[in-house]
This record gives sequence, structure tokens and C-alpha cells, in this order.
Amino acid sequence: MAEVVHMIDSEVFLAFSTYATIAVLKMMLMSLMTSYFRLTKQVFSNLEDTALVKTTEDRKKLVRVDPDVERVRRCHLNDLENIVPFVVIGLLYALTGPDLSMALLHFRVFVGSRFIHTVAYMMALPQPTRALAFGVGLFITFSMAYRVLTTALFL
Amino acid sequence: MAEVVHMIDSEVFLAFSTYATIAVLKMMLMSLMTSYFRLTKQVFSNLEDTALVKTTEDRKKLVRVDPDVERVRRCHLNDLENIVPFVVIGLLYALTGPDLSMALLHFRVFVGSRFIHTVAYMMALPQPTRALAFGVGLFITFSMAYRVLTTALFL
Amino acid sequence: MAEVVHMIDSEVFLAFSTYATIAVLKMMLMSLMTSYFRLTKQVFSNLEDTALVKTTEDRKKLVRVDPDVERVRRCHLNDLENIVPFVVIGLLYALTGPDLSMALLHFRVFVGSRFIHTVAYMMALPQPTRALAFGVGLFITFSMAYRVLTTALFL
Repeated sequence: MAEVVHMIDSEVFLAFSTYATIAVLKMMLMSLMTSYFRLTKQVFSNLEDTALVKTTEDRKKLVRVDPDVERVRRCHLNDLENIVPFVVIGLLYALTGPDLSMALLHFRVFVGSRFIHTVAYMMALPQPTRALAFGVGLFITFSMAYRVLTTALFL
Repeated sequence: MAEVVHMIDSEVFLAFSTYATIAVLKMMLMSLMTSYFRLTKQVFSNLEDTALVKTTEDRKKLVRVDPDVERVRRCHLNDLENIVPFVVIGLLYALTGPDLSMALLHFRVFVGSRFIHTVAYMMALPQPTRALAFGVGLFITFSMAYRVLTTALFL
Repeated sequence: MAEVVHMIDSEVFLAFSTYATIAVLKMMLMSLMTSYFRLTKQVFSNLEDTALVKTTEDRKKLVRVDPDVERVRRCHLNDLENIVPFVVIGLLYALTGPDLSMALLHFRVFVGSRFIHTVAYMMALPQPTRALAFGVGLFITFSMAYRVLTTALFL
């Protein structure tokens, strides 16, 4: 228990704050990308949203599904499924007082893997690019979880 | 680094705890609203769930998609995509030691914007009501992220 | 305000770290389960992903929707909608300095209810098994939120 010390003003915690914020901002950009595709391609989920664009078409026809928009949405959901666990476990990991160099390695590789994942998803790069990026991110989070559980286990 | 001080028993942290809890509770209400619509409209995703209602219809026909249920679910997903980033970045923001008045301004405007967003979504209010509520929430989170990155940047 | 004390190296916080990590790891396993079903059943969302399996079929036909994969995905989304609120509110709850026995009761019942929820969802157990597991998890989170708001309320 003594190993779980106050680390909130440590360099590890600053590094965590920085990389967690970058990862979450990246995730939020998917919202803006979805809005951009919806407005430029005129593809909406709600009838009232069609008022956001000028169109000569029947507005009801704009409530439809588009493969590009669905691709962005899948990428966004994948971010939620992976970046949120990183943030939660990364916060607890940062509080276990790891070496700064090890912590930075985890944070940098994770954030890098998620940027590669997004590029691979958006540009439909040949597999296994995206699968590898996904796997690396997962592995990093598992590695941090391992340290949390071995340091702080209290069942 | 000295600016990232222990703030966990500060008024800013209490305010963060309060508003984060309210925002997350609001998000969880979407689960209950989905259940309510599913039960009253008899619309289910899983065959085993149809046993939850009394019906004279063929149970397989109750496994279907309904526009009202889908609307609640989109609203719920939008909450996940926006309230989770607010909570993560808001926590780090609270730890940077902002002025109480500035912090309260951020938290109150964000939570207000998400309540307006939900009402606008559920009642299908004319746009750009919902788009503005979404944009205000996004802006608040970006503003807090800016402070986190300028105070705690450690790459 | 004095009740919100530094609890980060307390047993309650260690217990929170342990159960939050277990809950998040359980949620991440849904990603792996989705991948497993996609690869073994040859069901994909993206054309480029079909290169991950050997097949004699027309690859475009592998971009399809499968009921088993959709079931895993619904279970995963339900985890996101419930485990993320637990983690956020549980963190704030742990910082309010509850009794260790009460905290352990909350954390254990929540994590147990989510494991039961997943088993009930994956095996399509007769309702109301899954509904009860969902309800118990929701109740635990509401109970922790009640303590956070009554201890730390600052509007």
C-alpha cells in the first residue's frame, strides 16, 4: 500500500494529463468529422437536421445511411471502446508511481497507435495495419492494468 | 509543475465532483428512457427480452427497430461521446487549480448545454438548437483542455 | 468540505483501483470477443478487413451483419454505458472517504452484477436475469452518486 503514493504533482502525472488530453481531443475530432461528412454529403439521422443544409431534394430523402459516415462512426466508437479504458487505467497506473521513462513509453506508444488506427480506418489502408494499431493499444492498456493490479490489488 | 497542486479537497474539486456526477446521472437516465420506450412500445433487440411484456403478438415480430427508440439511443451515444471527454478533461482541469469562478462557469455552461441538447433531441426541436447545444459543450471541453495542456504539458 | 480528504493511498482507493480495473478489463474483453466472432464467422464491417481471413467466397459478401456479432456489440455498448459511469462516480465516491466495508460492498456487487449481465447476454439466458443484473449495477452507481452529492455538493 505504501507504494501507492501521492503522485498528482509528479512528472508522471503531468505526462499522463498531457497524453490523456491529446487522446481525448483526438476522439472528439471524430465528432467534428462526422458532422463535416453529414453536412457536405447531406446525410442525416434526424429529419429536423436536414434544415442545416440548403437543398432542392425532398428533405425526407436526406435521412439515410452513407458508407463514409458509417466508417467515421465506427472509428469513433472504436476510440470510445479503447481510449476510455486507457484513460481510466492510465490514471490508476500513474498513481502507482511508475518510472517516468516507462510511463512515457506506455503513453507515447498508446497515443501513437491510436493516431495510426484512425488514419488506417479513415483511408481504408490494407490490413493488418489497423488490426496491429488496435492490438498495440490494447497491449499497452493491459500492461498498465497488470501494474495496477500487482501494485494495488485489494479484493 | 508547481502549478499542478493538490486540489482534491478544494472547492473547485467539490464543484467538479458535483457537476460531473450530475452529468453522468443525466447520461444514465438515457438507459432508463430506452428501457421505458422498449417496454411501452414493445420494441426489442433480443428475442429473450420479449418475455418482459405481455403480448398477443408473435414474439419474433417484437424484435424490431423503432424510430423513437433509435432517437433515444442516438442521444445516449452522443452523451457518451461528449460527457465522458468532459469528465476526463474536467478532472485534469480541476487539478490545475483554476479560479473557482472560472471553473464554475465552465462546469455550469457544459451541464446546461447537455440538458438543452437532450431536450432538443428528445422533442426534435428545430435546428440549430441541438447543434448549438452540442457546439457549446464541445467548446467548453476544448477550453478546459487548453488550460490543461498549457499548464501541465509534459511530452 | 473537510469530509473530502486525501484518500488516494487509502484502502478504499486501492479497492476502487482493483475493481475499476477488473470492470474495465472485462469491458475490453468484449472487443476481443467481437474480433473472435468476426474472424471465425467471417463477418466484417469493412471491405479491407476481409483480407484477414482466407476465403473462397466473393469478399464483398463478407461485409455483412450477423446476429451473434451484433449481440456481442450490444453487450459491449451496454458495458460502456454502465461501467464508465461506475468508474467516474466510483472514483469520486472513493474520495469522499466511505467506510471500507461499505465501499467493498458497492464495488463487489457492481462488478459481480456486470459479470452476470455479460453471461446472461452472451448465452441469451431467460429474462429477467439480464434485466436484474443491469438494474443492480444501476442501483449501486446511483447509491454511490447519492453519497457524492450529499457529501460534496457545491453548485
